[in-house]
Amino acid sequence: MLYFENDYSEGAHEKVLKHLIDTNMEQLSGYGHDTYCERAKQKIKEACECPDAEIFFISGGTQTNQIVIDAMLQGYEGVIAATTGHVSGHEAGAIEFTGHKVLTIPQENGKISAEELKKYLTTYYGDASYDHMVFPGMVYITHPTEYGTLYTKSELEEISAVCHEYDLPLYLDGARLGYALASAGTDVSLTDIANYCDVFYIGGTKVGALCGEAVVFTKNNMPKHFFTSVKQHGGLLAKGRLLGVQFDALFTDSLYFEIGKSAISCAQQLKDAFRDKGYTFYLDSPTNQIFIVLENEKMAELQKEVVFGRWEKVDENHTVARFVTSWATKEEDVKRLIELL
Amino acid sequence: MLYFENDYSEGAHEKVLKHLIDTNMEQLSGYGHDTYCERAKQKIKEACECPDAEIFFISGGTQTNQIVIDAMLQGYEGVIAATTGHVSGHEAGAIEFTGHKVLTIPQENGKISAEELKKYLTTYYGDASYDHMVFPGMVYITHPTEYGTLYTKSELEEISAVCHEYDLPLYLDGARLGYALASAGTDVSLTDIANYCDVFYIGGTKVGALCGEAVVFTKNNMPKHFFTSVKQHGGLLAKGRLLGVQFDALFTDSLYFEIGKSAISCAQQLKDAFRDKGYTFYLDSPTNQIFIVLENEKMAELQKEVVFGRWEKVDENHTVARFVTSWATKEEDVKRLIELL
Amino acid sequence: MLYFENDYSEGAHEKVLKHLIDTNMEQLSGYGHDTYCERAKQKIKEACECPDAEIFFISGGTQTNQIVIDAMLQGYEGVIAATTGHVSGHEAGAIEFTGHKVLTIPQENGKISAEELKKYLTTYYGDASYDHMVFPGMVYITHPTEYGTLYTKSELEEISAVCHEYDLPLYLDGARLGYALASAGTDVSLTDIANYCDVFYIGGTKVGALCGEAVVFTKNNMPKHFFTSVKQHGGLLAKGRLLGVQFDALFTDSLYFEIGKSAISCAQQLKDAFRDKGYTFYLDSPTNQIFIVLENEKMAELQKEVVFGRWEKVDENHTVARFVTSWATKEEDVKRLIELL
Amino acid sequence: MLYFENDYSEGAHEKVLKHLIDTNMEQLSGYGHDTYCERAKQKIKEACECPDAEIFFISGGTQTNQIVIDAMLQGYEGVIAATTGHVSGHEAGAIEFTGHKVLTIPQENGKISAEELKKYLTTYYGDASYDHMVFPGMVYITHPTEYGTLYTKSELEEISAVCHEYDLPLYLDGARLGYALASAGTDVSLTDIANYCDVFYIGGTKVGALCGEAVVFTKNNMPKHFFTSVKQHGGLLAKGRLLGVQFDALFTDSLYFEIGKSAISCAQQLKDAFRDKGYTFYLDSPTNQIFIVLENEKMAELQKEVVFGRWEKVDENHTVARFVTSWATKEEDVKRLIELL
Repeated sequence: MLYFENDYSEGAHEKVLKHLIDTNMEQLSGYGHDTYCERAKQKIKEACECPDAEIFFISGGTQTNQIVIDAMLQGYEGVIAATTGHVSGHEAGAIEFTGHKVLTIPQENGKISAEELKKYLTTYYGDASYDHMVFPGMVYITHPTEYGTLYTKSELEEISAVCHEYDLPLYLDGARLGYALASAGTDVSLTDIANYCDVFYIGGTKVGALCGEAVVFTKNNMPKHFFTSVKQHGGLLAKGRLLGVQFDALFTDSLYFEIGKSAISCAQQLKDAFRDKGYTFYLDSPTNQIFIVLENEKMAELQKEVVFGRWEKVDENHTVARFVTSWATKEEDVKRLIELL
Repeated sequence: MLYFENDYSEGAHEKVLKHLIDTNMEQLSGYGHDTYCERAKQKIKEACECPDAEIFFISGGTQTNQIVIDAMLQGYEGVIAATTGHVSGHEAGAIEFTGHKVLTIPQENGKISAEELKKYLTTYYGDASYDHMVFPGMVYITHPTEYGTLYTKSELEEISAVCHEYDLPLYLDGARLGYALASAGTDVSLTDIANYCDVFYIGGTKVGALCGEAVVFTKNNMPKHFFTSVKQHGGLLAKGRLLGVQFDALFTDSLYFEIGKSAISCAQQLKDAFRDKGYTFYLDSPTNQIFIVLENEKMAELQKEVVFGRWEKVDENHTVARFVTSWATKEEDVKRLIELL
Repeated sequence: MLYFENDYSEGAHEKVLKHLIDTNMEQLSGYGHDTYCERAKQKIKEACECPDAEIFFISGGTQTNQIVIDAMLQGYEGVIAATTGHVSGHEAGAIEFTGHKVLTIPQENGKISAEELKKYLTTYYGDASYDHMVFPGMVYITHPTEYGTLYTKSELEEISAVCHEYDLPLYLDGARLGYALASAGTDVSLTDIANYCDVFYIGGTKVGALCGEAVVFTKNNMPKHFFTSVKQHGGLLAKGRLLGVQFDALFTDSLYFEIGKSAISCAQQLKDAFRDKGYTFYLDSPTNQIFIVLENEKMAELQKEVVFGRWEKVDENHTVARFVTSWATKEEDVKRLIELL
Repeated sequence: MLYFENDYSEGAHEKVLKHLIDTNMEQLSGYGHDTYCERAKQKIKEACECPDAEIFFISGGTQTNQIVIDAMLQGYEGVIAATTGHVSGHEAGAIEFTGHKVLTIPQENGKISAEELKKYLTTYYGDASYDHMVFPGMVYITHPTEYGTLYTKSELEEISAVCHEYDLPLYLDGARLGYALASAGTDVSLTDIANYCDVFYIGGTKVGALCGEAVVFTKNNMPKHFFTSVKQHGGLLAKGRLLGVQFDALFTDSLYFEIGKSAISCAQQLKDAFRDKGYTFYLDSPTNQIFIVLENEKMAELQKEVVFGRWEKVDENHTVARFVTSWATKEEDVKRLIELL
């Protein structure tokens, strides 16, 4: 079988794994107080060109979203997100579990706009009884989005400007950030993200690590006693090294960026093939997720040899399928899939 | 420097690491739906002699306690624990974070007794306004305890009997379970634990794994939709394989038991040396933690060459020090420490 | 000034107040364990023709929704409500505060339909990764709705049928229930509500009481230890009599129904006047809330002599105004308002 | 029967009730935005000699504690209280429900001391792994305590000094404050309390009101958007007037202080009688609660004609009984009880 189902079906990138092996028997302090965590933080700061950044490693994406959002919001505040945002629907209510409402606004291909955000905020504060409602306390975006789409630099800038007008931190969920940064068409760099966002996370789980996300607070704004908050939420690993060592490897010799490019290259070959063969794209994604409208018969035929995602039903005869490449995708598998199309 | 500070200062046992390496590029389903998780569960069931056990892998101990306790309690219930229980004081309020009170009862050397438990329950239900208080909904014990001590089989049986008389599930936190099972004097087997407890967890993080704990529900009593609860609490790893592969290795060829024995053997040598040299034991622990009362001067001297824990102050001139062995402790390091004493 | 702003601008109905005065110095047990609470419960059971009903009095509507929903849901479940439902937007996140997501579905004039509910549920359970999302655990409706509209008996029956097909309790928020039951056109009686709903509350605060809502569990389904849950949520009054005495008065000699009729009669006169004078109705409400589209100039003029609600902006020149009658509305005030129109 | 069971067995003081009656049909704004709430706040500020105080009315004591503590703490903080503190054991876990741990310290007759507080704090911050534990974020005391005892002015001053040394707000639960202020021996005035405490509440429910407590923030420190927090916790009454009108009456012509004196006078007569007749006091309380050690036979005999509280068992033959006077206690009932002793 060929696997194009998701970007977390293998273990770790070989260089990440090698670093784990090489450092395995070193005796290190626990809870992230080790030299590899320190080194990884230093390298990430450099990659972000943000020397004052404060960084914390957490095991997974939902946990990261839960902890960061809860720690940054006041008790009476909620977080604004796209209706399709990962926190809105696909985290089993992890945000609400901590007492905060997810306040949804419309999206287009997974993206929110400065206009919709502004409209939400003016409507909210224009309501005479706004203090009977949940205060917006933060804005959450994903980059790439759940549909693999990307914000442009000017879009980010505009959203950031609205956020700061209303004194709302902007939080970017970068579960697949490596694939965004490596996208051919993007004008958004890691430095831009550090510049426009108040906090964001660099996804490791889907970009070459066994597990782990690096939360970056960019404005000297890590919440007080964040270490304790992470512990309180259940997110502190005794062997914090597991995350530090992996991010140390990912940010050595630009590995994180290189493996992103590899996935994007595979995705581009696939997209070209889908286009050449006349397939209908559900939407145009410049990253590692490809959404194709398939006839159900064709889908059934392909599923005999390829594992991919069934995204949603279009009509009785058509379904949106999702094909995903990753740092681990092999050129030969891409070629075999193209032959099958 | 010699390290006897804790049992999580190295990475993974070589066989655990090897299994991660060997399986690294296999393409597996996410979220624990993979063959290694299945295999590990099967092996654990066999080791527990509990074929109907339901097992779930979670990354760390505090997270495991938080999720299991929250999922098993009703909203109006709290969990009974020793005042020294890990959930009582050292988890940054992770239990209260989920809305539940930790109801503490007296302990001796880290252990609670059936008598104290019974006393608490009769006092509670004897109070005319008990329904203005937090209902006890579960009993939490640690084995080994925070002081390295162990319950005997009859003690476990008695506690279990009181629990069941009051319809309270008994939950055993086995963060260091491997060292309990390998202790020379214990009459408590893994099967006994599965028998007397309603739920317990087999600690991986401190016993040879990079991370990971295996929660075992022994009485067909895994809470409904526990998978979703774990996700909601932020504890679900996309690459669930990371935990499954490690526990598969730990429960192959009795590795988990063997490495426990190795730590116990080192601890025994150390204890013999402390005794021979006239040191004062703070308490007698049959597992891998040794608590010694040191003169402050002696402590300062030792600290020049050995890393160990400062547990608590005894008086102006004496301090309790904690020396910990583990699966990774080398015989040569034990010998060098003994020479230094 | 004339007041048509809301239905909670006066104190208590004179008969309710009189009963408070008459019983004021009686020495009664606290926390709802008094004879007036018992009598009130008995009378409500009779009014509902539901002899097995279990009833609990709580001070206010948001608190009632919070406690009932939290106590009836499992931790991993959310409550389905209309996007315009009171719990969705106007309770400052009181539901999320208890850890539960409000799952919104489309509405028409404040009402949900069995069709939309069914669609939501089939879509949810049709999603391959539904267990990564919040389980629907309850359905919440308001009657009258936030727009003063009413469900018909057959609509209630259909919604109830979908709920029970999916084993979801149906919860009806009756903050203004008195005005629903007294509406001229309704075919829904209190008995019907007790029949179709698993739990509902009879609003006192907006229908003649100083404060207080009566929660009615209709199917022997009051959550275990609900008394303690109410206390835990901060909702237990030491002087529970305050609520019991008031509901005892409201359900003596059909007072609750009579005062509803009085409000409806005033509303009907107003509506006739608005219609006669050519005003545009924003929507047609059969209860005590009237929504009128006003030119902004007309609105400003009226506001000099009448207090009413500004509901929402229609366009630059028009606004939806809300006029509300209540048990306390005087015929003479209605006449004066009509003259001003 | 004679009632000496508690101080909430009657309705409202006649002057409080009269004010409710007199204002009943006035049309007032909701949610506490009415003139009576404003007036009551003004009068309380004057009584406290604290012109900048910010005041909020909440229905009951547990709810007040829950909201104030949750709103003032950071997420990772807990509240320090006596083991016998009302929040520690008798509020069904209402504090933990909001995610915060109650951190208990030893008490004597219900009181904590500056010494014990200081000891707790130095031990906490002296622990190397204090950031793995719950940060102390506030200190909670009751005055009178659960045992009717009172802090002296110098004790309050010392506790306040330790609090401020550690930047912890001091919160005083004054559920029975009227009886403290009226106590013959006390040197603590309302002004002192406003001076030493950062926030406290003046209890209405047990001192002449039907319900209601007045929270006083004394240092320009009402948490931001506290109104919304109260709503979110379910504690906002639509008819906020119910609380404002009552406190307006209680703080007119020193009524609150007068009715406290009346209760204290009754209690003093009772205490004299118990002493004269040779009864054993469990402890000496200078307020309206009297704790007497009774032989079980005597207790059973008295219970035929008097309702009082069974506090706790002393031994097989003796029980601590609690006799409580209040603003509503009649001289004649005191005399009849004395005759029965």
